[in-house]
Amino acid sequence: MIGRLNHVAIAVPDLAAATQQYRGALGATVSDPIALPSHGVTVVFVELPNTKIELLEPLGEGSPIAAFLARTPSGGIHHLCYEVDDILAARDHLVGTGARVLGSGEPTNGAHDKPVLFLHPKDFNGTLIELEQA
Amino acid sequence: MIGRLNHVAIAVPDLAAATQQYRGALGATVSDPIALPSHGVTVVFVELPNTKIELLEPLGEGSPIAAFLARTPSGGIHHLCYEVDDILAARDHLVGTGARVLGSGEPTNGAHDKPVLFLHPKDFNGTLIELEQA
Repeated sequence: MIGRLNHVAIAVPDLAAATQQYRGALGATVSDPIALPSHGVTVVFVELPNTKIELLEPLGEGSPIAAFLARTPSGGIHHLCYEVDDILAARDHLVGTGARVLGSGEPTNGAHDKPVLFLHPKDFNGTLIELEQA
Repeated sequence: MIGRLNHVAIAVPDLAAATQQYRGALGATVSDPIALPSHGVTVVFVELPNTKIELLEPLGEGSPIAAFLARTPSGGIHHLCYEVDDILAARDHLVGTGARVLGSGEPTNGAHDKPVLFLHPKDFNGTLIELEQA
């Protein structure tokens, strides 16, 4: 069912500093910052040959990564995003196995403008998993 | 400098249960378990089209993931592994930027039988980074 690893999302307290670490120390190609106010984050994309790393900084009130950074102020890996072909079929299969989908259970429009769902980290070894219909 | 994301490593308290979650709930292709006593882990590989996820369970005394699981008993993402062409050149460049290499600073033989180094998570937004000479 799951396909490509679409991205690894890392919450960072200082996006400019994190960009410089990835560009300078790690020698990676990093995009300019993109503000996504409706998602409560500013993001840069670290482009790797086979996938991407998304560095996320909180933006505005009620950012979905604010609580995470309050617990882990130096930052950390926030979630993994796996691609699926059919997000409703994936959801129904997952729910059938007892896995919990966060929120209402209905897909929302993700940061890439595609339907996404998040799975409860307690059902997957403490890992927050995003599913994105590719 | 960094190339492909070689793998994402997730520390899990129960490898059989984690395998079943990835095979059953997420419908992924998961290898049989491989014991790596010299690395203190038993691993399964979740094969995705573009990279892999490694699920790690502690093996024996002094497992390098035992302390992590003591802090986070339900498991969690342990490290990201980026490929590099020349690990000594990568190390020297990183040290020149002020980044800290863990241990002696000399590459060791990793779980894939290739030279690896680990970078201090405090220098990279709380993310433990493994570099592997591909």
